[in-house]
Amino acid sequence: MWPGEAHSLKVEKILFQGKSDYQEILVFESTVYGKVLVLDGIIQLTEADECAYQEMIAHLPLCSIPSPKTVLVIGGGDGGVLREISRHSSVETIDICEIDKLVIDACKQFFPDLSVGFEDPRVRLHVGDAVEFLRNASEGAYDAIIVDSSDPIGPAQELVEKPFFETIARALRPGGVLCNQAESMWLHTHLIQDMLSICHEVFKGSVRYAWTSVPTYPSGVIGFILCSKDGSPVDFVNPVNPIERIKGITLKSKKDLHFYNSEVHKAAFALPSFAKRELSTLTRATTMLGATLTS
Amino acid sequence: MWPGEAHSLKVEKILFQGKSDYQEILVFESTVYGKVLVLDGIIQLTEADECAYQEMIAHLPLCSIPSPKTVLVIGGGDGGVLREISRHSSVETIDICEIDKLVIDACKQFFPDLSVGFEDPRVRLHVGDAVEFLRNASEGAYDAIIVDSSDPIGPAQELVEKPFFETIARALRPGGVLCNQAESMWLHTHLIQDMLSICHEVFKGSVRYAWTSVPTYPSGVIGFILCSKDGSPVDFVNPVNPIERIKGITLKSKKDLHFYNSEVHKAAFALPSFAKRELSTLTRATTMLGATLTS
Repeated sequence: MWPGEAHSLKVEKILFQGKSDYQEILVFESTVYGKVLVLDGIIQLTEADECAYQEMIAHLPLCSIPSPKTVLVIGGGDGGVLREISRHSSVETIDICEIDKLVIDACKQFFPDLSVGFEDPRVRLHVGDAVEFLRNASEGAYDAIIVDSSDPIGPAQELVEKPFFETIARALRPGGVLCNQAESMWLHTHLIQDMLSICHEVFKGSVRYAWTSVPTYPSGVIGFILCSKDGSPVDFVNPVNPIERIKGITLKSKKDLHFYNSEVHKAAFALPSFAKRELSTLTRATTMLGATLTS
Repeated sequence: MWPGEAHSLKVEKILFQGKSDYQEILVFESTVYGKVLVLDGIIQLTEADECAYQEMIAHLPLCSIPSPKTVLVIGGGDGGVLREISRHSSVETIDICEIDKLVIDACKQFFPDLSVGFEDPRVRLHVGDAVEFLRNASEGAYDAIIVDSSDPIGPAQELVEKPFFETIARALRPGGVLCNQAESMWLHTHLIQDMLSICHEVFKGSVRYAWTSVPTYPSGVIGFILCSKDGSPVDFVNPVNPIERIKGITLKSKKDLHFYNSEVHKAAFALPSFAKRELSTLTRATTMLGATLTS
């Protein structure tokens, strides 16, 4: 995912090394980023900067719709996204479908500030394949679906392909939203273009790209694709359900938000000119293609 | 500046190695970031992402005031900031004070897309010490001063201290603005706090912190402090002189802006909650102290 460069964190101590049916898992104590989770050699999170990723991927979608009640997380076995969703008192059920039990177990042992998310009584854990899970889900079951996948190699390969997005769209109620991890605007433009193109075709509603700063990810940024379904436009840029107005954080770990706020939410959609050009040309092309096909 | 971690770019070919009176200079061809300029072992710029830094440090201040005419650049020997300033047709003179002639010469040889900035006939080059230069400058000579310094170790040490900011304030006209390189909000909070505290004391006008994504800088971000003088508040967040309305880019290299636009300008001031807390507490404390001292 990052040819010709390397980002190295000093390992103070290796805390865990394991191999599941899906990937190699490593947990180590770093010098300045706290504990670090690595899957197949790729940094997934560090204690020092996980706040940016977890808070953005959860609150960008959940603050964009009024009173989300049913939420599905795909991936996210560390529990950090659950922790963030649990701040939303309107939410009634949080399903999570993670394929790799060993990730969950390792995180419960070494990342209690993240795995605390599993302690929310609204959480229902499903260990298994996401595509399979979505096929069995009721149509329109979810207000929000958050895809917290690893990079699209290994077990997450399927999660950037069209059939996957079709099952997502099916499981989303009208007015519901998807937030999907969507790589770096500096490094992976083609992959983002492909995902945006598929999302436009499948969802036919609002489709937006947002990004944020995560120091330990390649190029120091990570992006998100937000989608709503045909006939249910969502103004993703201006949160209708601002986090500052949400009362009653229900988890034990009542830590303040470290990264996300409504200003940061809006700012995340401001794209550098190069990204705007590359991604909007595509949007127009897809829209024109869509128009041709349906006319 | 970056303990416990390393960011490595693969060196395809070393193009230049030299030692000036001030620092060691290295230019190499990397695998994916194009040519790279390194001073005393710290990456200063790469061809792939220099756009973000150069465009932001130049246009954040110049788009915040109507019709800037006289501009001073401190540091910036690569010429990239000059290239960006030259897009502003209102500008009549661009002084640049760079201490290290060898940086300028190396960049003229290896970074023609940056050093093209020196070809603007409005540019007047002064090779020498910035503090000395500012002491000799007329009071109120400049509409905008841009401090494009390297990290505050080595030749740039003085450039984060109070006497330096006092000479800047003196050289700035009422209504003029300073934009100063201001490190990473993830890594250098204390340094930023110190700089903000000094700026509040010295400038007593508007003081704001902005940030942007630059993949090859530590933690993938870089910040900027923007200041105006006492009695001349400037709304830095909402550009009064938006770049989209500026006609007549005068340089040979009429490349489109790669990164900066008015949306990105506004978004740069949206601080993550942790940075907001750490930097605004300081702002209040300083303001309170200022009030006590002057009452």
